[in-house]
Amino acid sequence: MAVGPGALPEFFPVAGVKLGIASAGIKKPGRKDVVVFELAPGSRVAGLFTRNQFCAAPVTLSRKHLAEKAPRYLLINTGNANAGTGKRGMDDALACCQALAQQAGVSVAEVLPYSTGVIGEPLPVQKIVGALPEALASTADNRWAEAASGIMTTDTRPKGASVQVDLGGHTVTISGISKGAGMIRPNMATMLGFIATDARIAPDVLQTLASELGEQSFNRITIDGDTSTNDACTLIASGQYTGPEITLDSPQLPALRNALKQVYLDLAHAIVRDGEGATKFITIRVSGAAAQQEALDVAYTVAHSPLVKTALFASDPNWGRILAAVGRAGVVDLDVSALEIHLGDVCLVRGGGRAEDYSEERGQAVMNQEEITIAIDLKRGEVSETVWTCDFSHEYVTINADYRS
Amino acid sequence: MAVGPGALPEFFPVAGVKLGIASAGIKKPGRKDVVVFELAPGSRVAGLFTRNQFCAAPVTLSRKHLAEKAPRYLLINTGNANAGTGKRGMDDALACCQALAQQAGVSVAEVLPYSTGVIGEPLPVQKIVGALPEALASTADNRWAEAASGIMTTDTRPKGASVQVDLGGHTVTISGISKGAGMIRPNMATMLGFIATDARIAPDVLQTLASELGEQSFNRITIDGDTSTNDACTLIASGQYTGPEITLDSPQLPALRNALKQVYLDLAHAIVRDGEGATKFITIRVSGAAAQQEALDVAYTVAHSPLVKTALFASDPNWGRILAAVGRAGVVDLDVSALEIHLGDVCLVRGGGRAEDYSEERGQAVMNQEEITIAIDLKRGEVSETVWTCDFSHEYVTINADYRS
Repeated sequence: MAVGPGALPEFFPVAGVKLGIASAGIKKPGRKDVVVFELAPGSRVAGLFTRNQFCAAPVTLSRKHLAEKAPRYLLINTGNANAGTGKRGMDDALACCQALAQQAGVSVAEVLPYSTGVIGEPLPVQKIVGALPEALASTADNRWAEAASGIMTTDTRPKGASVQVDLGGHTVTISGISKGAGMIRPNMATMLGFIATDARIAPDVLQTLASELGEQSFNRITIDGDTSTNDACTLIASGQYTGPEITLDSPQLPALRNALKQVYLDLAHAIVRDGEGATKFITIRVSGAAAQQEALDVAYTVAHSPLVKTALFASDPNWGRILAAVGRAGVVDLDVSALEIHLGDVCLVRGGGRAEDYSEERGQAVMNQEEITIAIDLKRGEVSETVWTCDFSHEYVTINADYRS
Repeated sequence: MAVGPGALPEFFPVAGVKLGIASAGIKKPGRKDVVVFELAPGSRVAGLFTRNQFCAAPVTLSRKHLAEKAPRYLLINTGNANAGTGKRGMDDALACCQALAQQAGVSVAEVLPYSTGVIGEPLPVQKIVGALPEALASTADNRWAEAASGIMTTDTRPKGASVQVDLGGHTVTISGISKGAGMIRPNMATMLGFIATDARIAPDVLQTLASELGEQSFNRITIDGDTSTNDACTLIASGQYTGPEITLDSPQLPALRNALKQVYLDLAHAIVRDGEGATKFITIRVSGAAAQQEALDVAYTVAHSPLVKTALFASDPNWGRILAAVGRAGVVDLDVSALEIHLGDVCLVRGGGRAEDYSEERGQAVMNQEEITIAIDLKRGEVSETVWTCDFSHEYVTINADYRS
């Protein structure tokens, strides 16, 4: 199951970024499960990584390498997360980077490793290393769609976004892919997301963009509230376009930020639309909050409530469950008689109870839709936040009760 | 589904406490859905109520009446929570109390109202008032089992506990009933729990016992993380036994506390065992924490993780999900290489990864059991906390996607 059409876009190649794909047979023979990004010299990279304290070995190593050198290669495997693997996991991640560095003629610190898949099993290093020649030999700038498939785990479909914008007479290209369907509640980072542009962006601006845009997109989605050990979102700027370097003062920065943000949002939303067992795409908008944390607390409490999520699955306008979730979100001195809750364009709650003009028929009409907005106005202040999530279906239980078997 | 045998015990009558049951036809014709507790003059009552800010009208009114007078009657209806009903809900709850007060010849503040069931629909006052004569005419001290059934909603079985203990030559009786199966994560209170004893207990001791024991039992269980709007746990001491008043200095207090605690725990655990769709009863014990909140954060993060709960349903020793949940529980500077996680008597995690002596077979053997303990030693301090929960099954989704239809 998944929400919406979800076809991949036409990808614009990004000058200076090539993709190689290979089959290492990590979980299934013949499946493309290794992806390599090859970046032109001079490329700059900024990353956001999981805040789960049990972060996986490749996350630790990517952070370290990123601090040491400008990356030339990204090495991604699916089928095994190399997480919860202790010291051996670190050795294994390093061994894969070393093999790629040797074959490509770069230093090991110029390789960033990424792994996704099952937690706690040793990384099949030999299989991955054995697939590197095929991956390196196949690099090309037009393999984005294959790469999107190559990083999938329980995803039912590949995820990508691609745009071109004019920045003062110079065309900038942005293309990206993402993966993830479960164990999704990013915290200052995300499942796997790779966004590349050919713009030349000053390092401080690149890191700021990576942080800000990750925060506003991947860090605002949740499927099941479970933060992965391997979340990583990487922004690449190859600098190959014809325009000038984008600095903090560049007049082109706002247009670039907007274009990048669209790609980030599309990729993040694609993960929610493909959430494990998802049949609905839900936008939860909290306004009138006194503080950002308060807005997020309310939004996530509603987004994580199993009772709200099963009611959404059933298309049941059981608004009492939304109200109960808001009431337990920990907002101090919440005036329940002031707040308003809307489902789509239908007011559910006003004056501390069911809105007088609410009818079951009108609530049902919104609930029957595939994309639904729940808007909660706390009437306490000026802060707004939006979070995206999906419903909770039988299929979710099936997927997660059967994942390893 | 439910875990364990779950038969009701033989209830010892509690002198000074009578129960009346009637059928008001709130949701289903003929179903017993109104229960009245009649307390002898001189009884003392202490309560704990939900901290959900959208607390239901009967919770607000019970709190108010409890502060004004010693209660003589408790009036409980199932099938309708009278929550999210605004000002009308308060009027409706008061109208029910007034009718009972008039028929019983007491003042309205001597009646405590309790409601449980669907949120957001007007309370059917006339039906409840119409059932009061039957309820009052039927009061007797031996109707505990019927009362346990009379307060059920989505429960699949009634819940009760009953003990007698000797306090310095005087026999004390404690009997209690509870209800709840979903929307269960009490916060300083619980679904509905009524515990009565014939002991005479000083008011300050009674309130302390109600707070402490509720905290250690009902406030340590979670089924789906959703705190209800109507949670309430009430401790009644009729004072009819032959012994002296129990004060803070009484040598009998520890024995009384232990006996009461056993009843509280039995009633709280019974709710978890009957959790919506539950097939497993899970004890999560966090030790070695630096602070109570840290221990509770870890325990509840594991207890609420949909991935952990579906793995438990599948009897899948997918310990990586437990590890990932611990890692996102917000413990500052957690040393992941120090902590240990046990599943039953099998060590899962040691040294930052899978324990060396772990085997899938041993993990599977524990997972196949119906009652499972997950023990997490953070190795940071001396604080321990225990939380009880259940697994997450297809049946949970079925129950909650179909509840109102």
